[in-house]
Amino acid sequence: MDRLTIIKVGGKVVEDTDSLSAMLDQFIKFSGNKILVHGGGSTATEIAGKLGIETEMVEGRRITGKSMLDVATMVYGGLVNKKIVAGLQARGCNGIGLTGADLNLITARKRPVQEIDYGFVGDIVDVNSSELRMLIGENVVPVIAPLTHDGKGQLLNTNADTIAAELASEMSGYFSVYLFYCFEKKGVLLNPDDESTIIHELDKAVFKQYQKEGIINTGMIPKLDNGFRAKRNGVKEVLITNIANMANGRGTRLV
Amino acid sequence: MDRLTIIKVGGKVVEDTDSLSAMLDQFIKFSGNKILVHGGGSTATEIAGKLGIETEMVEGRRITGKSMLDVATMVYGGLVNKKIVAGLQARGCNGIGLTGADLNLITARKRPVQEIDYGFVGDIVDVNSSELRMLIGENVVPVIAPLTHDGKGQLLNTNADTIAAELASEMSGYFSVYLFYCFEKKGVLLNPDDESTIIHELDKAVFKQYQKEGIINTGMIPKLDNGFRAKRNGVKEVLITNIANMANGRGTRLV
Repeated sequence: MDRLTIIKVGGKVVEDTDSLSAMLDQFIKFSGNKILVHGGGSTATEIAGKLGIETEMVEGRRITGKSMLDVATMVYGGLVNKKIVAGLQARGCNGIGLTGADLNLITARKRPVQEIDYGFVGDIVDVNSSELRMLIGENVVPVIAPLTHDGKGQLLNTNADTIAAELASEMSGYFSVYLFYCFEKKGVLLNPDDESTIIHELDKAVFKQYQKEGIINTGMIPKLDNGFRAKRNGVKEVLITNIANMANGRGTRLV
Repeated sequence: MDRLTIIKVGGKVVEDTDSLSAMLDQFIKFSGNKILVHGGGSTATEIAGKLGIETEMVEGRRITGKSMLDVATMVYGGLVNKKIVAGLQARGCNGIGLTGADLNLITARKRPVQEIDYGFVGDIVDVNSSELRMLIGENVVPVIAPLTHDGKGQLLNTNADTIAAELASEMSGYFSVYLFYCFEKKGVLLNPDDESTIIHELDKAVFKQYQKEGIINTGMIPKLDNGFRAKRNGVKEVLITNIANMANGRGTRLV
């Protein structure tokens, strides 16, 4: 099978002009089929603040009211996504910016209200890989914002790490998929303040043990859960890394 | 040649939920190949105001400073564009939201500073029809926001009427193109307050005469200039109309 590289970059990487530029310079080094999935970061929170919309977080997850969904659609689907695309085009890479609504790529269900009402947050129901494969077959590079839709006209906010894992899982039926989670640190660290404590290889049993002992930073847990799920679903390699190291394959490898 | 319908809808149509919904219901009635081009409308001005960015207009054109370009990218490329796409998908129409940066569709040049510095406004240099034709060949419906790029990483704000005319001109080499400018009135009116004064057919000489006599509303002039240019470039039909009449072909026909 052909190789497909899926790179997820965090919000912090894409909202600063210099780090965005550095990321794009690394991203274009990957030859062949590739997809970029990006997060939103704090720009949405900042703009929401200026517009008088309060940002409510529960357990590290943003509660997405109607106004906040509009801000997410503007910032993730518009500002961040199109800046990335323009930056790729400037580098000779034929990017196309997409949300899950475009081409009906990712259908989600509004998360049911239980203890917490997350608002307009979508849990992925279906990934439409045929349209993505069509674009990739045309040497196009999809750039995917963390937004999905319910198929009935409602956009929904969906975690970018989860989108990357679901895309990787679905595409692993057609490609040999390499999934990279790219954030600020070199990889998963035993001590979050010391990059020399990087874990080069992490298996699920050790991860669960570390998690129980509180060794792994809580912010890393959804990323790792997503990564291990992708591995289980046939993704060839999952690497947690940073911009500087992504192109040379260094970081924390899930095994 | 196959028929291609290109419909440009104004900002006022798309920023209100009810009129957006009514427009989409009409839009999907057009069978076969189609492209939707949308304007931005006053949402950008309103959001810019809340963010403390002043909107400066010269001769009906927005001056696009750096902050205003970000707002345009958010509102046109994100909020408006993705709401339209989600609405089309809900109606079984396979929409894809695009700017001129996506797939390198529309390259523009930042307007040179003469008497007025328009800021980040782009004059179209090139329309890349091959990618549009590829999408149309896949039964995809492009939804195009009024944003272009310079190919060097800079997004630019470009008038939606002009984008529609340039796309129509370029595509008329491959399709029998029908271009519809859809706004609030039934067509071009002799008296802007009386829809019974609609001009059913307008030729360029009469238009120029009316323009000289100040009969035609100044807001209509760029639309008509664009429409006549498209006609001259081989577009089969140009119609100025409103939502209720677009699907039945009534309005002002340029001849």
